[in-house]
Amino acid sequence: MRKISAAIVGYGNLGKSAEKVIASSSDIDLYGIFSRRDSLDTGSPVFNVADVEKHSENIDVFYLCLGSATDIPEMSEKFARLACTVDTYDNHHYVAKHYEQMDEIAKASGNVSIVSTGWDPGMFSLNRVYASAVLPNSDQHTFWGPGVSQGHSDALRRIDGVQKAVQYTLPDEGALDKARQGNAQGLTGQQAHKRQCFVVADESEHARIEKEIREMPDYFVGYEVEINFISSEEFDRDHAGMPHGGYVITTGQANGTQDTIEYSLKLEKNADFTAAVAVAYGRAAVRMKEQGVSGAKTVLEVAPYLIHPAPLSELISKNV
Amino acid sequence: MRKISAAIVGYGNLGKSAEKVIASSSDIDLYGIFSRRDSLDTGSPVFNVADVEKHSENIDVFYLCLGSATDIPEMSEKFARLACTVDTYDNHHYVAKHYEQMDEIAKASGNVSIVSTGWDPGMFSLNRVYASAVLPNSDQHTFWGPGVSQGHSDALRRIDGVQKAVQYTLPDEGALDKARQGNAQGLTGQQAHKRQCFVVADESEHARIEKEIREMPDYFVGYEVEINFISSEEFDRDHAGMPHGGYVITTGQANGTQDTIEYSLKLEKNADFTAAVAVAYGRAAVRMKEQGVSGAKTVLEVAPYLIHPAPLSELISKNV
Repeated sequence: MRKISAAIVGYGNLGKSAEKVIASSSDIDLYGIFSRRDSLDTGSPVFNVADVEKHSENIDVFYLCLGSATDIPEMSEKFARLACTVDTYDNHHYVAKHYEQMDEIAKASGNVSIVSTGWDPGMFSLNRVYASAVLPNSDQHTFWGPGVSQGHSDALRRIDGVQKAVQYTLPDEGALDKARQGNAQGLTGQQAHKRQCFVVADESEHARIEKEIREMPDYFVGYEVEINFISSEEFDRDHAGMPHGGYVITTGQANGTQDTIEYSLKLEKNADFTAAVAVAYGRAAVRMKEQGVSGAKTVLEVAPYLIHPAPLSELISKNV
Repeated sequence: MRKISAAIVGYGNLGKSAEKVIASSSDIDLYGIFSRRDSLDTGSPVFNVADVEKHSENIDVFYLCLGSATDIPEMSEKFARLACTVDTYDNHHYVAKHYEQMDEIAKASGNVSIVSTGWDPGMFSLNRVYASAVLPNSDQHTFWGPGVSQGHSDALRRIDGVQKAVQYTLPDEGALDKARQGNAQGLTGQQAHKRQCFVVADESEHARIEKEIREMPDYFVGYEVEINFISSEEFDRDHAGMPHGGYVITTGQANGTQDTIEYSLKLEKNADFTAAVAVAYGRAAVRMKEQGVSGAKTVLEVAPYLIHPAPLSELISKNV
């Protein structure tokens, strides 16, 4: 079987993780990394993103390891014209619009563009759909964490006097149990989660900083907030990681009997897992194109076996 | 949108559950139930299975609610010649053979036959494949229970002097934790599960019965076995249900960081959930046939959106 030739676009955390995942995938070769920067600290071939047309004949799939805020909306269409693409676009509100735009380009170019892979959207989307398909009258809740919230950590760091800070979002244990028992109707995101802050600051500033955190609208007001002031050494030792994860809990009574379906992820490094999911969906993009499919696809439209490196017959005999 | 016209073949626990699931599915109409028995205790139309050819033009999909031991192997091909089928064939060892046989018939007749739906095989198969696709070097364990084991309950009831008995298989909590931490390599099924028995018998017989249970080869020897003698009243009050469920736990280190993926089901009534999954896959069979697909398919080959009653655009905007 011919190996898949893949390229990475962008070399932030996600691009670096994708590079490692591809290196450990025996069915995928890395053609190179496309970047706007002149040089990158990597042993892989590096090309300027402006030269992508010169290389695209050698590439089956582009992994678009770009930010969702502006880079994916602005840059992804260019790559969908040239080959299959996989992205991790995670702005839930605009997924449908992104999907439509990519569908038009990918259909015209005869490629497959898989949008919004990763874990949420991605594996969580799959589980929400599977669970609600088999339990049609279900009550479904998604919980995030324990994990680092970049936005909230940034908000803490913008407070005067804060030297270092991180904010973990944690699902509330009581809320998790209510969801498992089917008693969480009407639960809000604020009730379902608590916000845990670790902050480094001069002791004289603690009281003011704590007050500013608790009174910060949108970010902390209305949530259960736990604030821990710690030393700089402790911060560096215990809070350098980027863990994340969460739960999709679905309860339903299809036939008057109560069922609970629970899917959870505990991820040591958010970007590594997101990249692992994206890389797997690159297989599906290339295989679907070989089957004559073109256009944009969400994870909901991809048959599961298409993302696995093993052949279908082996998957059936081992897993079904 | 035209409603799906479905028929149920077989009216045991699974067929009865499927009848209820279809009744609560607004996109599926029940044409009738085919049985070898002359009359059934149901308000639905009942037909003799020998007359199925007379009705098949009106039927989009047959739900084969038949036993895996002999009925599915002997009877399912007949229905695959006439329309799409869904079955819950659960003899893991022979799934590949059943799939091949159904594939030949379904391809020849232009129908789609979805084999081995339910929860294991079924939802658990899906989760094993998704998790091992994104964490290729993973350690994966399936645990069953807490749930009633029919085979072990039957074995208890064959012991002289046993008036009533039920056996629950329970995952061992320590084994579950080891699997979550990625420390369960080499774990055997015996180490992963314990067997909990509730038995009604004369007090004078307890010691002998307990000895016979603990010494029963294949069924109980080698397992942690808990034996509870209870009154007949207590048995009827607390042990009339058919709960089941289990866990698929996958740990991996794609990029040197540790991830845990856990999927679990807690089902109040085994047959109700199995039927709910089978009924959902009936949608996929009919839709795939409309898309020009024919042949046998496992759940691994079915794109997730195809099993959901809602349209794709709604699924994307709500779940991705």
